[in-house]
Amino acid sequence: MTLTQNAPAPHQAPPMQPTADQAVLIVHGRDRTGIVAAISTVLGRHGANIVSLDQYSDDPHGGAFFQRTVFGRPDLKAALPAIEEDLRQELANGFELEYTLRDLSVPKRVAIFASKTDHCLLDLLWRNRRGELPVNVSMVISNHADSADEVRSFGIPFFHVPSQGADKSAAEAQHLQLLTGNVDFIVLARYMQILSGEFIERVGVPIINIHHSFLPAFIGADPYAKARQRGVKLIGATAHYVTEDLDEGPIIEQDVVRVNHAHTVAELRRQGADVERSVLSRAVLWHAEDRVIRHGNHTIVFQ
Amino acid sequence: MTLTQNAPAPHQAPPMQPTADQAVLIVHGRDRTGIVAAISTVLGRHGANIVSLDQYSDDPHGGAFFQRTVFGRPDLKAALPAIEEDLRQELANGFELEYTLRDLSVPKRVAIFASKTDHCLLDLLWRNRRGELPVNVSMVISNHADSADEVRSFGIPFFHVPSQGADKSAAEAQHLQLLTGNVDFIVLARYMQILSGEFIERVGVPIINIHHSFLPAFIGADPYAKARQRGVKLIGATAHYVTEDLDEGPIIEQDVVRVNHAHTVAELRRQGADVERSVLSRAVLWHAEDRVIRHGNHTIVFQ
Amino acid sequence: MTLTQNAPAPHQAPPMQPTADQAVLIVHGRDRTGIVAAISTVLGRHGANIVSLDQYSDDPHGGAFFQRTVFGRPDLKAALPAIEEDLRQELANGFELEYTLRDLSVPKRVAIFASKTDHCLLDLLWRNRRGELPVNVSMVISNHADSADEVRSFGIPFFHVPSQGADKSAAEAQHLQLLTGNVDFIVLARYMQILSGEFIERVGVPIINIHHSFLPAFIGADPYAKARQRGVKLIGATAHYVTEDLDEGPIIEQDVVRVNHAHTVAELRRQGADVERSVLSRAVLWHAEDRVIRHGNHTIVFQ
Amino acid sequence: MTLTQNAPAPHQAPPMQPTADQAVLIVHGRDRTGIVAAISTVLGRHGANIVSLDQYSDDPHGGAFFQRTVFGRPDLKAALPAIEEDLRQELANGFELEYTLRDLSVPKRVAIFASKTDHCLLDLLWRNRRGELPVNVSMVISNHADSADEVRSFGIPFFHVPSQGADKSAAEAQHLQLLTGNVDFIVLARYMQILSGEFIERVGVPIINIHHSFLPAFIGADPYAKARQRGVKLIGATAHYVTEDLDEGPIIEQDVVRVNHAHTVAELRRQGADVERSVLSRAVLWHAEDRVIRHGNHTIVFQ
Repeated sequence: MTLTQNAPAPHQAPPMQPTADQAVLIVHGRDRTGIVAAISTVLGRHGANIVSLDQYSDDPHGGAFFQRTVFGRPDLKAALPAIEEDLRQELANGFELEYTLRDLSVPKRVAIFASKTDHCLLDLLWRNRRGELPVNVSMVISNHADSADEVRSFGIPFFHVPSQGADKSAAEAQHLQLLTGNVDFIVLARYMQILSGEFIERVGVPIINIHHSFLPAFIGADPYAKARQRGVKLIGATAHYVTEDLDEGPIIEQDVVRVNHAHTVAELRRQGADVERSVLSRAVLWHAEDRVIRHGNHTIVFQ
Repeated sequence: MTLTQNAPAPHQAPPMQPTADQAVLIVHGRDRTGIVAAISTVLGRHGANIVSLDQYSDDPHGGAFFQRTVFGRPDLKAALPAIEEDLRQELANGFELEYTLRDLSVPKRVAIFASKTDHCLLDLLWRNRRGELPVNVSMVISNHADSADEVRSFGIPFFHVPSQGADKSAAEAQHLQLLTGNVDFIVLARYMQILSGEFIERVGVPIINIHHSFLPAFIGADPYAKARQRGVKLIGATAHYVTEDLDEGPIIEQDVVRVNHAHTVAELRRQGADVERSVLSRAVLWHAEDRVIRHGNHTIVFQ
Repeated sequence: MTLTQNAPAPHQAPPMQPTADQAVLIVHGRDRTGIVAAISTVLGRHGANIVSLDQYSDDPHGGAFFQRTVFGRPDLKAALPAIEEDLRQELANGFELEYTLRDLSVPKRVAIFASKTDHCLLDLLWRNRRGELPVNVSMVISNHADSADEVRSFGIPFFHVPSQGADKSAAEAQHLQLLTGNVDFIVLARYMQILSGEFIERVGVPIINIHHSFLPAFIGADPYAKARQRGVKLIGATAHYVTEDLDEGPIIEQDVVRVNHAHTVAELRRQGADVERSVLSRAVLWHAEDRVIRHGNHTIVFQ
Repeated sequence: MTLTQNAPAPHQAPPMQPTADQAVLIVHGRDRTGIVAAISTVLGRHGANIVSLDQYSDDPHGGAFFQRTVFGRPDLKAALPAIEEDLRQELANGFELEYTLRDLSVPKRVAIFASKTDHCLLDLLWRNRRGELPVNVSMVISNHADSADEVRSFGIPFFHVPSQGADKSAAEAQHLQLLTGNVDFIVLARYMQILSGEFIERVGVPIINIHHSFLPAFIGADPYAKARQRGVKLIGATAHYVTEDLDEGPIIEQDVVRVNHAHTVAELRRQGADVERSVLSRAVLWHAEDRVIRHGNHTIVFQ
């Protein structure tokens, strides 16, 4: 494990304007009459104005309830503990709901995992530097050292944790040591190592992955070559939360690009890389803005 | 004006399942703390459960407020007058808001205006018959008689009101006679006549229009030929509400298709027709479901 | 089997302008130096002008060769036999090539197979009537009688051949009797019966099928419900040639539409139906214009 | 003007594999019987195999003729002068045609012009470094010094030529001095200065520009704010060749992204930047591969 951190990049873009004096509240649980009223009444009591509210119920008769509310008021930071306490009491009051409340002026902290292929990694770093991705990139972890200089030129710590064969426990122990307490979520930006179920559980934060997608699916090695043999006309990518079932977790975002018979396997990969990086950046943005709610094996995305 | 109505078509699809015991409430006005709470409290008081709620404010500090709420309760029809009265009192209470409340079991009534070109007209009728477009098509009005049999085979009244040169007042008087009291909105499905400002005002219901769109715009006659000369790579369509400023009203929906140099003008028109009918059908669907709120010269669309 | 044919529809659109005095030549085989020169020299010898030529070789070093050439000359029909004989001799001359030559003024004859679901069937009939699909629809065959009147109102013969349980041989014998000698290709427009390998071989014409597609694939019954549980963000469709491997034949065209968590299974199906009909109509158009060349398990599509 | 060149970047990607022993021939002029035969006969005479051939005629009766041919043979470089001479004689022989012949192993040289906004500039440099864009970036010229370090970290010369008010002649003289003899085409990657007609003529190489596009168009300052007021649902970009008529030159490529009412002007700009960079990179790729033929005010693009 290498632990050098470069100096900040010399001509960094102006820091993204944090959304001052606004917070986002996610409420999720069993639908019942009166939830919206209860929440909005609490917010009103504290002089908070609702900036946007998205609510969705997957079955009007006792289904699951999802609500994303952005609200604001002057001097929010000082008022937030009282608002939260009030919400806690109100929502405990006979509702079966979970909620999270987050000050939007504090960006989420993310660790990006990468391997040799760096198109997704760099796309995230560039967007972040341009102010398009409201996260704090705490660190980049890779099983290859190749991207170290590039990452550090963004002023971001780079840690090289080589893969160590079939037994990943030593590498994962290093990962946990680096991550614990330091990040709010993890992005696998074409990270080519499989995470153990134990790691997923112990790290305790959401993990977003990106992988190629085809219609139909091509199982096994070299899916681009197989896709070309079948003559597919679309190449896609899927961003999803990582669960123990590899590549079977809740989907956050998908997209495709059009290809044709004249595209070589290399060109299909290039097109695939393009759609991967745009799909991943949208998934990370939406997660960063608390627009994605996991429920069972799918997601509610309030765009 | 021809006023024969055909018998209903023999093998009509099953009527669309009306959304029983649900209503949609649109609230629109000046943003202020407490609106969401006030509305949801009223609904809760009447035992109504919120099925979906979309709220948007275009400026957290005193901007405009938009809310679409779908709610339900058993025996809604009987309860609706009391809910409406309660809402009226609550929202009058210091808020500057307009609202509309509509029983979703009663589809909106629409008149479709068409000319010779029938791709948009027929697409709407087919979708309606398939149960994909929850409207009652009260009548089709055309300045050409060509589509009469086709329209009547759907069991829908067809009225032929020929265009009458520069002075449209006689034709528009016939239109008003047919429409007044009978429709909730009008769709111009490639209707090639210009409506007078007086007609728009007197008919008093929203009018949706579809027209081709290009980047850049091509002004004047035969835009497809001009688009081909410039070698455009995209052909688009825009559905919008009709205002006195021709083709300048609030946009509801837009889309494009990809074309290339080998497309003849006739093929560009065919592609344009395809995108026109899909854009128009989405705009009509969203209007029918009260998903579109007009505000100034634009729209809020809660999809 | 019902064998009544309706009178032609009363208000048929003007017949599609056949492409007079033009032919399309497809050449396909082993790449070798000199093929393009040989073909274009023959055409030049007969005073034929090349309108468009697309050529593709999947490997510059001895791969497969594909060429689509549209050419024209005055009084083509009379000249075509001599052109064909000349091509036959020239291409026999040391090349390993197959070719087909077709007079573009004679549209291909197609039979459409359908079941209860009629969105794809009707879309093809409407496009054909509008002059957008240059084929002769010789007949519609269905295992349900529901669409008979609708189909016949287009002036097209409708044959009801009920499905007959596990043993399809009697039904397929009827199919072959109807089809043999009468059609150049077959379209399965959401035909819900499986064709036997024997039928596919004996009918001897290309068969195009459409089916829904998802990323990832959802195997088994009710894929839309499974897609919703997984929270897919795209719904797709694939048009392909039918081979004995069900749904595994060479892909002609694919497309997707965007969906979200709020779409019910019924809405997903409606969106799927929309993308199915547009994908199928493109595949049929390209096949009708000889733009699709099968090669192994994929296709070359010269758009 | 600053003229320092940095050392090559330390961890440059492997150089793009040049397409060895292949050349591209573009032929463009008046259609006549026999052109394809004449060209392919010449190529065959020199043992050259045709890898791909796209031909298009905009009117079968004496319209304009366009052909792109990629061909290869062993030891192409040595054979090319004789092939060219043979083509010259053959095409002079009664045809009214222009042609260009280019060895594909020698990438085109490009100068990129930029201003402060660097998303398009950096996207081109990244793609080039990843081997996705087969050009030699000879230099970057900007009227701002901000991007100097970033550009030089790619090992590419950066020249700062400040804008000098209304009279651009001094700056343009510097541009000409830098460019003359050094580049095959120029890309304006969000370069915010207007080029004089004299410069366009004197520089003598094609210039590609990118600009935002809307349906409808929004003229004048701050189009994104106007687009938001009108509630557009699509934001687009157009890449085109620069002519003296500002933003009116032949279109190479266009694309759009979907937006909605909740997007702020800043978000619309971010979305616009994304579509700009992808459209520009496609246009540059296609120009680099000689896939684009200018004709009148439009382009033939052989994809």
